[in-house]
Amino acid sequence: MTIGRLFVISAPSGAGKTTLLSHVMARIPGLVFSVSHTTRLPRPGERDGIDYHFVGRDEFHSMIEQGRFLEYAEVHGNLYGTSQAAIRQQLEEGIDVVLDIDVQGAAILRNSGQMDAASIFISPPSMAELEKRLRGRGTESEERVRLRMKNARQELQAVEQYEYLIINEDLADAADLLAAVILAERARAHRLPSGKPIEKSVTE
Amino acid sequence: MTIGRLFVISAPSGAGKTTLLSHVMARIPGLVFSVSHTTRLPRPGERDGIDYHFVGRDEFHSMIEQGRFLEYAEVHGNLYGTSQAAIRQQLEEGIDVVLDIDVQGAAILRNSGQMDAASIFISPPSMAELEKRLRGRGTESEERVRLRMKNARQELQAVEQYEYLIINEDLADAADLLAAVILAERARAHRLPSGKPIEKSVTE
Repeated sequence: MTIGRLFVISAPSGAGKTTLLSHVMARIPGLVFSVSHTTRLPRPGERDGIDYHFVGRDEFHSMIEQGRFLEYAEVHGNLYGTSQAAIRQQLEEGIDVVLDIDVQGAAILRNSGQMDAASIFISPPSMAELEKRLRGRGTESEERVRLRMKNARQELQAVEQYEYLIINEDLADAADLLAAVILAERARAHRLPSGKPIEKSVTE
Repeated sequence: MTIGRLFVISAPSGAGKTTLLSHVMARIPGLVFSVSHTTRLPRPGERDGIDYHFVGRDEFHSMIEQGRFLEYAEVHGNLYGTSQAAIRQQLEEGIDVVLDIDVQGAAILRNSGQMDAASIFISPPSMAELEKRLRGRGTESEERVRLRMKNARQELQAVEQYEYLIINEDLADAADLLAAVILAERARAHRLPSGKPIEKSVTE
């Protein structure tokens, strides 16, 4: 029984991470999202325990005190956190888990040294293209676009902390590359069934 | 201009490495074999400078003395070596190079610390299947099969020295996985155009 692999994936808003992930998750079996905890209210259609674990601020703070989060962060006034227990359980079942977190959360996880993860940064092809995509949504105010562009510039500074970089210029190419990274990580020799060297597996 | 990536690929005889590589090389652009030097005579159809650089023992020994080989080894009475110059030139042209060498050669290259390479071990699914494949060739004497099986057991001990392990049970699956490893290595963040951080590439 091979233990699952944890993938940490970050991207500036507008880099196309969500679309990319939905393509890749659909075609790779045995790969699931981790379910985060949040204090924000559910949006229409969001389901508790599937999209997020929706909890109150008191419960969230109690979980922080109990050290139950791998990482947590406050974004736009709401708390978001990743519970260790949920991820460990999935990994121990041999499931590969995708952790979709921002660069701040990824840095906390990395520095904690608590879990080994393969980290992937999704980048827009250029700042001009990113701005075009953000405006193309038609849902963002001018102020909001500027804020997101400023954040993106900051987030891109973190790219060197990631093991893999996928530049999302063409969606199909980027999806192929992301799928390749996930498959390749599964082929890493140190990811073999624990306690059973390959020469034993093969020669038995 | 990104410098090319060097892939070291080893496998016990009969693991299906040659077939696997021919499938993968055909579908990944910008990926070529390194051309080794050898003192053995050309087989029918082999071309000098393409399949091998065919040289005499005197020339080979002179190259050894000049330190021109990344690694060399004597196999079944013939000398095989990988010239540094040929590989470096291809890498500097941005071409990814596959180095098809045995575990002995791979160990010498690894220990020399001269070139950074991603190392991949191709394994048969089991020793029983390996024996079946070796006999299935119909070209190997009983003694030869036994020697190859003995060598395979030894070579499998080296697998933990490799970064990636691909178990060649189903050719199509193994080819997908090998292609994934090569693409994923291209996405490694430290493989970006040298001297130009990604945040510069993207924000310019």
